[in-house]
Amino acid sequence: MKQIEVQQKVLKRHEDIAQRLRGRFDEAGLLAINIMGSPGAGKTALLEVIAGKLSAAYRTLVLEGDLQTDHDAKRVRAVGLEALQINTNQACHLDALMVERALDDNKIKLDDFDLLVIENVGNLVCPAGFPLGEHGRIVLCSVPEGFDKPAKYPRMFYKADCVLLNKIDLLDVLDFDKDAFWKFVKQVAPKAARFEISCKTAHGTDAWLDWLNERKGNTTRTEG
Amino acid sequence: MKQIEVQQKVLKRHEDIAQRLRGRFDEAGLLAINIMGSPGAGKTALLEVIAGKLSAAYRTLVLEGDLQTDHDAKRVRAVGLEALQINTNQACHLDALMVERALDDNKIKLDDFDLLVIENVGNLVCPAGFPLGEHGRIVLCSVPEGFDKPAKYPRMFYKADCVLLNKIDLLDVLDFDKDAFWKFVKQVAPKAARFEISCKTAHGTDAWLDWLNERKGNTTRTEG
Repeated sequence: MKQIEVQQKVLKRHEDIAQRLRGRFDEAGLLAINIMGSPGAGKTALLEVIAGKLSAAYRTLVLEGDLQTDHDAKRVRAVGLEALQINTNQACHLDALMVERALDDNKIKLDDFDLLVIENVGNLVCPAGFPLGEHGRIVLCSVPEGFDKPAKYPRMFYKADCVLLNKIDLLDVLDFDKDAFWKFVKQVAPKAARFEISCKTAHGTDAWLDWLNERKGNTTRTEG
Repeated sequence: MKQIEVQQKVLKRHEDIAQRLRGRFDEAGLLAINIMGSPGAGKTALLEVIAGKLSAAYRTLVLEGDLQTDHDAKRVRAVGLEALQINTNQACHLDALMVERALDDNKIKLDDFDLLVIENVGNLVCPAGFPLGEHGRIVLCSVPEGFDKPAKYPRMFYKADCVLLNKIDLLDVLDFDKDAFWKFVKQVAPKAARFEISCKTAHGTDAWLDWLNERKGNTTRTEG
């Protein structure tokens, strides 16, 4: 019982901080999205391939979550995006306090940005349980991972606003049942938007950007 | 402080159960291995491709860890291996108590087996922190995940007895820096055995089985 009570208190605290963050994002008219997926699904590659169009449309800030290294922040900076790296050390996910601290410790003025992209730790389980104040949850899967992941990891999918299937350029060389994949997605997350993309060829990324632009259009600055 | 104290107690309890399990494995002369890796790295595919040779050499039991579904247990049963499915529901890893309960609830007699293969939940972070009484920790990576995973997820690698790089049949179509991958592995886990395999072509799997056979040869039944 003691363990469960402490866990519930900790989760409640994370939710409170996430709500506070959400308020700050709304006040600044900032759209925040949380991109989650397995290690190597292509989360950073997606940002690399859309960087030019993102930069042209929005003052964009990227938060990169990783246990160790600043590889990902370097990669997105190299394509012209402003990025902060959060190293979680042993932690398997980002939480709202980490996000808030990264923003505040780096003296980020949220008013200076239109879009905050949070790339979570590569993990198809734990990040799902930790809200970060985001307006949109993106789950990024990839063809080499296999078609049954939405069925095997439903918790990651069921609150998704959008599911992306990446590396579709590999459909010809891999045995992947695309229909079964989307059937599983629809079962777990019937309302999630669905896109097939390739971060290698940029296929499908414009369609996803249209979806993002629409979400952004719905964000209105809270008049203070 | 309260949270940390409770966490430490919980981890200590898991370690105690893992030690107890290890004692039971040793008494039965059973070699237990724990296979860990990202979702879709190919853990089940590895068991499928070596199933015939495993069955010929050992009385083998497979424990399949997944949040949901019994897809993986069905897959390995289809190639003739005896398998139990453990569904962790929300939990991101197997722990020793889940393993012990699965064995006992299913009235498994450890004396009836030579080899226990535990396929952990697909997750490159959390399973590393939970010992299962295993004699060998296998970390399975795959080419599509990218070469920098050992640097970004060092905790998974640093206690590995063996690191397998799977899907090397895709080296021709993907941009993967193999030398950098192994350099990272050597930095984090200098003593780990290293193998390149393809579960599609079976390349390298015999070499890995030789390694496993050698580990098995070193297991001696505890005379009671």
